[in-house]
Amino acid sequence: MASITCSGSIALDTTRTPFRTVEKVLGGAAAYFSMAASFFAPVHAVSVVGADFPEEYWKLLERSGIRMAGVQRKPGRTFHYDCSYSFDLYQRFANKTELNVLGEFEPVVPDGARGSEFVYLATMPPEKQLDVLRQVGGRKLAFMDTIEFYIRGSREALLKTMGEVDGVILNDAEARMLAEEPNLVKCGRKIAGLGPSITIIKKGEHGALLFSDDHVIPFPAFPLEELLDPNGAGDAFAGGFVGALAERSATSPRIADLKAAMAYANVMGSIAVEDFSVDRIVRASREEIGRRFSAYVELMRVH
Amino acid sequence: MASITCSGSIALDTTRTPFRTVEKVLGGAAAYFSMAASFFAPVHAVSVVGADFPEEYWKLLERSGIRMAGVQRKPGRTFHYDCSYSFDLYQRFANKTELNVLGEFEPVVPDGARGSEFVYLATMPPEKQLDVLRQVGGRKLAFMDTIEFYIRGSREALLKTMGEVDGVILNDAEARMLAEEPNLVKCGRKIAGLGPSITIIKKGEHGALLFSDDHVIPFPAFPLEELLDPNGAGDAFAGGFVGALAERSATSPRIADLKAAMAYANVMGSIAVEDFSVDRIVRASREEIGRRFSAYVELMRVH
Repeated sequence: MASITCSGSIALDTTRTPFRTVEKVLGGAAAYFSMAASFFAPVHAVSVVGADFPEEYWKLLERSGIRMAGVQRKPGRTFHYDCSYSFDLYQRFANKTELNVLGEFEPVVPDGARGSEFVYLATMPPEKQLDVLRQVGGRKLAFMDTIEFYIRGSREALLKTMGEVDGVILNDAEARMLAEEPNLVKCGRKIAGLGPSITIIKKGEHGALLFSDDHVIPFPAFPLEELLDPNGAGDAFAGGFVGALAERSATSPRIADLKAAMAYANVMGSIAVEDFSVDRIVRASREEIGRRFSAYVELMRVH
Repeated sequence: MASITCSGSIALDTTRTPFRTVEKVLGGAAAYFSMAASFFAPVHAVSVVGADFPEEYWKLLERSGIRMAGVQRKPGRTFHYDCSYSFDLYQRFANKTELNVLGEFEPVVPDGARGSEFVYLATMPPEKQLDVLRQVGGRKLAFMDTIEFYIRGSREALLKTMGEVDGVILNDAEARMLAEEPNLVKCGRKIAGLGPSITIIKKGEHGALLFSDDHVIPFPAFPLEELLDPNGAGDAFAGGFVGALAERSATSPRIADLKAAMAYANVMGSIAVEDFSVDRIVRASREEIGRRFSAYVELMRVH
């Protein structure tokens, strides 16, 4: 079976919602992505944690099947992200972003991860994303994410990395900033012009848009009555997407593969927000994911 | 074939966008709704215009097949709505709302419209919506819209009218205000508890949610690269929805009927915004609408 190498942050998150606050729980893009993707295919994580990283979380990641050989343990503290949500959970405010050991992280892709068919480069400085991509070597399909900080401050390096990947997965605000264009359909086409043949624009509760060749395909979010913690939803979404492609070894995905992967992406995003941290993802099973996938596909079927 | 009676405003709109301003063009909820619905079934309009209403617009409505016997011509000026859009067309600002002859409008449903199987009550004071509903008489399926002004100021009358219709079609801000709840899925369930068996929450560029029995079904908007004038999109959406139900005489619609009607609703909304006023709707044909419906259904099909 095809495997995935994912680089990015593993974090300790402090998340403050109107209903509950959790402190220093497992988080970070690579953690959410890997947890979600590991239902579908083996995942090699490339990341770094500090001496304060709880053994319990390390074991949880291992028990989820994630290959941890590429996760460095360094003296110092783990990346810490502290944020608050508005009363309706629709707006997030960053209180603290303490990079700690992530600040000097030099990714090293372990032998077992070299040659992974699928690569996901979660947000990092674009030079380091490119470094990971080159270390993996003969990969077949690579995706990347980024944030406004690098779009604003490292555009040149970012465009260079974007020129080397097959797809980008961004949220709507990032896409608008990158494309300098408010209309998201135009954004997607402009980003496609920068190199990637697959562009996904995530719209949170409103779903996502997929761009591939001349296709522009909207996907609604799976409707949820209860959401507890939106943190990591976008990374779990990406994990569902890349995971589903890896599961079917779709290294040259056809549009039908991409659409099914988008459905799995929405399923994993919807599962991620149903509890704090990765707790709900941990409680999921491939069978449950399959049932929610079928429900989602049936919802959207019009005769 | 089943017919539709639609009551509501016919307006002269002044619409200011960053690219172009049009003055006193044909607008109003009943105009957009009737134009969109008339591709599917005969529509009787119940409305009022002033002495300044251009003959050309009257003829345009007639040529579109709309039955105008219920449209009163009064001395005075036609309802005039003047608004501006933000540079990205995502935000609307009302400059002037001159009710004029609409202020004292007393709807009279003409003989030909009595007994219409389908009724659409566009925004009016809720007492007048109820009056129209009772005048139509033995209708089978009735839908209504409203605005924040009546949710805030006439809640009791509004709830009374809502108790008599089969469905409500609202936008997200209105639904949140009515249900006093930020989560739209919870909003839909709360509104269903107020009486209507069908609730539709429109989210503009993000599509819409359909609630019926225990179903909660999200529909993305048809993706558009060029939109010129968002005015009337929600009314054309409602026209596509009720029109499609009337076309198939679905007076007791099954979920498959409702889903197809939602797809037609998205199609008509997407057509409406592609030009100013009702110009693009006028240029559409049932064949073109059918093609866009098929494209929309195919977009959403996941295997």
